[in-house]
Amino acid sequence: LLDRGLKVIDLSADFRLRDAAVYEEFYGHPHPAPDLLGEAVYGLPEIRTPEIQAARLIAAPGCYPTSILLPLLPLLRENLIDPATIVANSMSGVSGAGRKADLSLLFCECNESARAYGVPKHRHLSEIEQELSLAAGEKVVISFIPHLIPVNSGIVTTTTAMLGKGVAPEAVGAALERAYSGAPFVRLLGRGACADTKNVTRTNFIDIGWQQDPRTGRVILMSAEDNLGKGAGGQAVQCFNLLFGLNPTDGLQNF
Amino acid sequence: LLDRGLKVIDLSADFRLRDAAVYEEFYGHPHPAPDLLGEAVYGLPEIRTPEIQAARLIAAPGCYPTSILLPLLPLLRENLIDPATIVANSMSGVSGAGRKADLSLLFCECNESARAYGVPKHRHLSEIEQELSLAAGEKVVISFIPHLIPVNSGIVTTTTAMLGKGVAPEAVGAALERAYSGAPFVRLLGRGACADTKNVTRTNFIDIGWQQDPRTGRVILMSAEDNLGKGAGGQAVQCFNLLFGLNPTDGLQNF
Amino acid sequence: LLDRGLKVIDLSADFRLRDAAVYEEFYGHPHPAPDLLGEAVYGLPEIRTPEIQAARLIAAPGCYPTSILLPLLPLLRENLIDPATIVANSMSGVSGAGRKADLSLLFCECNESARAYGVPKHRHLSEIEQELSLAAGEKVVISFIPHLIPVNSGIVTTTTAMLGKGVAPEAVGAALERAYSGAPFVRLLGRGACADTKNVTRTNFIDIGWQQDPRTGRVILMSAEDNLGKGAGGQAVQCFNLLFGLNPTDGLQNF
Amino acid sequence: LLDRGLKVIDLSADFRLRDAAVYEEFYGHPHPAPDLLGEAVYGLPEIRTPEIQAARLIAAPGCYPTSILLPLLPLLRENLIDPATIVANSMSGVSGAGRKADLSLLFCECNESARAYGVPKHRHLSEIEQELSLAAGEKVVISFIPHLIPVNSGIVTTTTAMLGKGVAPEAVGAALERAYSGAPFVRLLGRGACADTKNVTRTNFIDIGWQQDPRTGRVILMSAEDNLGKGAGGQAVQCFNLLFGLNPTDGLQNF
Repeated sequence: LLDRGLKVIDLSADFRLRDAAVYEEFYGHPHPAPDLLGEAVYGLPEIRTPEIQAARLIAAPGCYPTSILLPLLPLLRENLIDPATIVANSMSGVSGAGRKADLSLLFCECNESARAYGVPKHRHLSEIEQELSLAAGEKVVISFIPHLIPVNSGIVTTTTAMLGKGVAPEAVGAALERAYSGAPFVRLLGRGACADTKNVTRTNFIDIGWQQDPRTGRVILMSAEDNLGKGAGGQAVQCFNLLFGLNPTDGLQNF
Repeated sequence: LLDRGLKVIDLSADFRLRDAAVYEEFYGHPHPAPDLLGEAVYGLPEIRTPEIQAARLIAAPGCYPTSILLPLLPLLRENLIDPATIVANSMSGVSGAGRKADLSLLFCECNESARAYGVPKHRHLSEIEQELSLAAGEKVVISFIPHLIPVNSGIVTTTTAMLGKGVAPEAVGAALERAYSGAPFVRLLGRGACADTKNVTRTNFIDIGWQQDPRTGRVILMSAEDNLGKGAGGQAVQCFNLLFGLNPTDGLQNF
Repeated sequence: LLDRGLKVIDLSADFRLRDAAVYEEFYGHPHPAPDLLGEAVYGLPEIRTPEIQAARLIAAPGCYPTSILLPLLPLLRENLIDPATIVANSMSGVSGAGRKADLSLLFCECNESARAYGVPKHRHLSEIEQELSLAAGEKVVISFIPHLIPVNSGIVTTTTAMLGKGVAPEAVGAALERAYSGAPFVRLLGRGACADTKNVTRTNFIDIGWQQDPRTGRVILMSAEDNLGKGAGGQAVQCFNLLFGLNPTDGLQNF
Repeated sequence: LLDRGLKVIDLSADFRLRDAAVYEEFYGHPHPAPDLLGEAVYGLPEIRTPEIQAARLIAAPGCYPTSILLPLLPLLRENLIDPATIVANSMSGVSGAGRKADLSLLFCECNESARAYGVPKHRHLSEIEQELSLAAGEKVVISFIPHLIPVNSGIVTTTTAMLGKGVAPEAVGAALERAYSGAPFVRLLGRGACADTKNVTRTNFIDIGWQQDPRTGRVILMSAEDNLGKGAGGQAVQCFNLLFGLNPTDGLQNF
């Protein structure tokens, strides 16, 4: 497709990592097209607008990375938190696992059930840490614990990290405002507000709330999105709009 | 009741804290009977068997503290983790909030919803930190983020902490085995296993799994219990059995 | 409002009945404005298009009547079924009861619960029977049993009735096609197809399937709609569009 | 097994029908052992106590037939209703379909969904009609419409039928009382009460309520049971207890 001069937005995980060795570590086989990795753009529209507009090959990030990266990246870029202390707990609806005839996804297996899985090294950790490291300017390794809960769609992620020494309590909110004031799909709920999956169902929004805890010195970031919206699918449409100069919200206002 | 020579097992939060000042800080009013705080026993049966057997006044701990304390206490007692790095994320079913005619507990408000609440200073943090501090032999302050999810009953808690320097990977499992090998209601699932609320529904069991992550140096503790069982109610019956020399599982095998 | 020359679309039950005595029988108090009953139009847009276009006062029907009336009215008008044998069983999501702080609507009361209620004389029977009688040209009395089931929104109704003597098996489908071929919000699923609430969620559609049973001589009508769409709310918007000559689907394509 | 002198309680549908031709009509292949059909006992413990006690081969009925037959049989035996007018609508939890890796049973397919299926001739109609006919003393054909709803377990069935001419309103309750006053697992809720699946979860009870509607002349029967209890499984244990002279409730008080 690239050879024919077409632009490609890829929904798979194949072009999300820059480093073929990391790909092999997390996916268990050598990368099939390592020469394209340098060129591919990690398509998080709120973070890489100009790169996406100029790209030939875009890798649309999935739902877990989006819910973790959007709250964290501005804080890391501005050096507000200690990257060695990041812990992200996500709770995902069942559609996040896809539509497969699998016993573990049956109604009676999921209903009235809540549990962690994929501990400690979920595949998407690789792209999460890559992007966090780029923002922090140093190698970042985090704990990420996904959970399955009985809702159709929606991810809520709670991320904690130690605030840097001397960082003022208002700095977190200010950094998020600076990063997302013009972003049509990021809704900043404010300090003390908790994001709820039901407020983003069937939308492309990501809601972000935050809180600081003077007792522990930690910041608590809470994000919610619909994995069927602001996951790979909604992201790809946002990238498409950027790539072809369309209105940023075209095709994304209701689904 | 105490004056009449009766033994009391209290389900409220009034006698769980040893320090009346902490009570006032977390509950917002002075303690009504501070002279009894020294005598009251925090009734976690697996941890305080002899004290409960000899007590006049027992305070039965609720569901959140149980799910957090049972996995952590043996590790703190044996000095296996860094107490300053503890982060606990809990997901609770709706019955945990009690049966009140409250808009936030309506079916349509809770179904398809997942969200954090009570951030950053839930009332039960006070008793959790008291017990963790006693086990660690130093003041412990943690992050605790409760979430509400759409299940009738059940709590799943995921707790992370940095392993102490030089602690062997097998030490966590060994400490848990030592602490709970004779405990009829604690089921150790083993390393790598994830606890699931649906396996403890309508029982008094707490299931505990754990995992270690060499990349981050953290241990991940995962517990599941039915808040209508191994919360204050089931705990109280366990204490009653200890207090009166009954079989430890009497009245707790099915409900 | 009428005196000031305004047109009124009423979402309450006050102007749905033509007969003030029936109103008093079902609602327990005298009608407050009986002189307006003769003029008010029962606003089922698919059935009364010209009357709605010319009306001053429209009473928008609610979700249960819509789900029962739309499948039945064409069959009664064409004399295809025996009106004395109609039995309608409806299953409604919890939002159908409104948003009230009521114990019976709590998550833990509704989840894992299914039950009939309002038996045998639900208030909306009055308007259902009025409209069925008008279509049949004779007084019709039916059994209507509503049930509450644990879904947020959606009603599925299964209605049975004896086919008239000598009515050909194809007559039911043909009558429905004639009635609704031009109706943008009625989707006829065909003979043997079963309507499902999940296919109409967050839409203004009503899906209708049907089946005939030669063993019993009964026709089985199955309809599904979202009570938050094709109940009083969606109906009112459809009526508004008719009243003011707008496109029939304006404001109703996604919500 | 029979040749070796053992008693057999069969959970399959193979020995529930007396007539091999009906078996072939509903199951689509010839019966594999028609010579045993005359001897096999339809194992509804509340209805056939002496036959079960004396049987060699018992066929335990499943959940749908139990929920329909127990309320209806006493009324047919006493000639209180018109058998030609019986319509049964059942709503079943997802576990009723078994535990199979089938797309239609996935969480996201069932959650927020309610729909009829198996219309108009579900396989279990054959045994339902056989037993109704035996009680009525004439051939009975009914309408049975099963629905799938998003609960783990539980069936609620609403059955309507015309009361016979001149039957007093109290006759229905009196007949049910006579039939089940000594039955430990049948709870008669009384006239006007609606059975609810959540009250029978994880029990072997069947709850039965009823109502009469003077407007239509119909009786409305409402039953609820846990299909994992008072379906084939619980029934088989009840039959076992009868067969071997054990206490009727042995092994059935909690599960």
